[in-house]
Amino acid sequence: MFENPSGPWALIVHGGAKEMGPGEEDANRQGVLEALAEGRKILERGGTAVDAVEASIRKLEDLPIFNAGHGSSLNEEGEVEMCSGMMDGRDLSVGAVGAIKGVRNPVSVARAMLGEKETLIVGEGARTFARNKNLPLVNNDALITELRESELAEHDTVGAVALDKGGNIAAGTSTGGLTGAHVGRIGDSPVPGCGFYADNHVGAVAFSGDGETIQRLALAGRVMAALDRGEHPEQAVAKAVAMLPGTGGADADGGGIAISKDGRVGWAHNSPDFAVAMITSDMNEPKAWLGKKEEKNG
Amino acid sequence: MFENPSGPWALIVHGGAKEMGPGEEDANRQGVLEALAEGRKILERGGTAVDAVEASIRKLEDLPIFNAGHGSSLNEEGEVEMCSGMMDGRDLSVGAVGAIKGVRNPVSVARAMLGEKETLIVGEGARTFARNKNLPLVNNDALITELRESELAEHDTVGAVALDKGGNIAAGTSTGGLTGAHVGRIGDSPVPGCGFYADNHVGAVAFSGDGETIQRLALAGRVMAALDRGEHPEQAVAKAVAMLPGTGGADADGGGIAISKDGRVGWAHNSPDFAVAMITSDMNEPKAWLGKKEEKNG
Repeated sequence: MFENPSGPWALIVHGGAKEMGPGEEDANRQGVLEALAEGRKILERGGTAVDAVEASIRKLEDLPIFNAGHGSSLNEEGEVEMCSGMMDGRDLSVGAVGAIKGVRNPVSVARAMLGEKETLIVGEGARTFARNKNLPLVNNDALITELRESELAEHDTVGAVALDKGGNIAAGTSTGGLTGAHVGRIGDSPVPGCGFYADNHVGAVAFSGDGETIQRLALAGRVMAALDRGEHPEQAVAKAVAMLPGTGGADADGGGIAISKDGRVGWAHNSPDFAVAMITSDMNEPKAWLGKKEEKNG
Repeated sequence: MFENPSGPWALIVHGGAKEMGPGEEDANRQGVLEALAEGRKILERGGTAVDAVEASIRKLEDLPIFNAGHGSSLNEEGEVEMCSGMMDGRDLSVGAVGAIKGVRNPVSVARAMLGEKETLIVGEGARTFARNKNLPLVNNDALITELRESELAEHDTVGAVALDKGGNIAAGTSTGGLTGAHVGRIGDSPVPGCGFYADNHVGAVAFSGDGETIQRLALAGRVMAALDRGEHPEQAVAKAVAMLPGTGGADADGGGIAISKDGRVGWAHNSPDFAVAMITSDMNEPKAWLGKKEEKNG
């Protein structure tokens, strides 16, 4: 199936750069591990990075603890509008949807867009595209959970990046958006070069956090340039995250995950918490962290 | 008004990477020169790069020869959907609108977004924002010209980049989109790091052309990295444009204009034509080209 079907593989997923509420730690840890397991199955049996990223993000969307798909934030009119992007590092194809309503799994709509001439479609046109592709539609209100109705502003896009046994790399994001935002607001999540990027010759990255500041910095492109210079993914993401407060103000926070073409993985964040899980072909068991909270707990 | 109110200034505008129809040369040349004159007036009297870029692009939008504002392309449902982005290099603020209908000057909506927390809004939400800002709305059909109703697929985003006497840099784009595209389609034009970017410490760039391929390459970010390494704007844009066919196929064409922080300007394209006009504080008269067509004519 692949030219190099026994190459190293790797997968890293995250559940958002955010501040976890009291008692949310276990659900976040369990959630990112479940999402990781979905993608891991695919990579272990020789499947593609694109399939693994989609499968992991679908699980994150389905779990209400994460602000994506089921459990999304509400905009200024109390509606859910979601964004998602995917990128296939084999040919730099991009599939993305913005401000889409009433679909169960935005990442699968983004995945379907990978095969289209267009890269990014938004709003009602995006939902029409999903319907034409026979992807599951839902009543938009079914995406609202009690958790989101009670919360204040939060931004916690989920994401995943993967390297498969064939040396292919993919990245993906999905978000329920920013609580109280303008109708039609789009942050970094569906925008290549801002919220995500993947290139087999370089690596991949996915961001979460202050979407406007990440977009203004075109942050994913900066990480790709650093990876291309040979920087370790952790260093590349850490330097990018450090730019957020200087551009978006003291409150601008975020986090990112990255992978290099040779399978090194890394993550960094300046948000209070950042739920991450990872596995590589060199590891027997997955690892999970909850960010600073985890570090504090030793 | 500025720390350095007598510094060098520069402005470059373009009317789209495209193939001009028979007899369209004069209207294109005249159009980019008129647009340049609008921005030049502002820069000469000590106004800001942001004001100059907005003024130049408003003129390009108003002229039906260009695919932006009045004279936009029609999507698969025969409707006009427009995109525009602006960026202020002083603080990296971004204002952008995507798939917006029924506004006279999309660039002025993007300009108004510069003052918002959000950077990019799309669809009906974007038009609501324009209405709330008391910007002129029009019947969407009023934007359709006989020229566009008769044409085949074309992509000819307009753009401008400027350096003002105070050393501030700005970039802007505006497009009527891609003929026959999916409803809600968004290309590179409203996306920072893809279709445009501006940073006082580096320079600015604006692209036109195959919007999907420009987006997949996050091309504006690549030019900014080259400018940051000290490359001449013309060289930086030429190398970026040369990537288009390799990623989007033999037909992927485009063009870009760029400016460095010290006021050097440059442009490059692999499209059949590219209407450009420029003026700097060192020049007495503006210069205009029509791209390859011009070069052929000597």
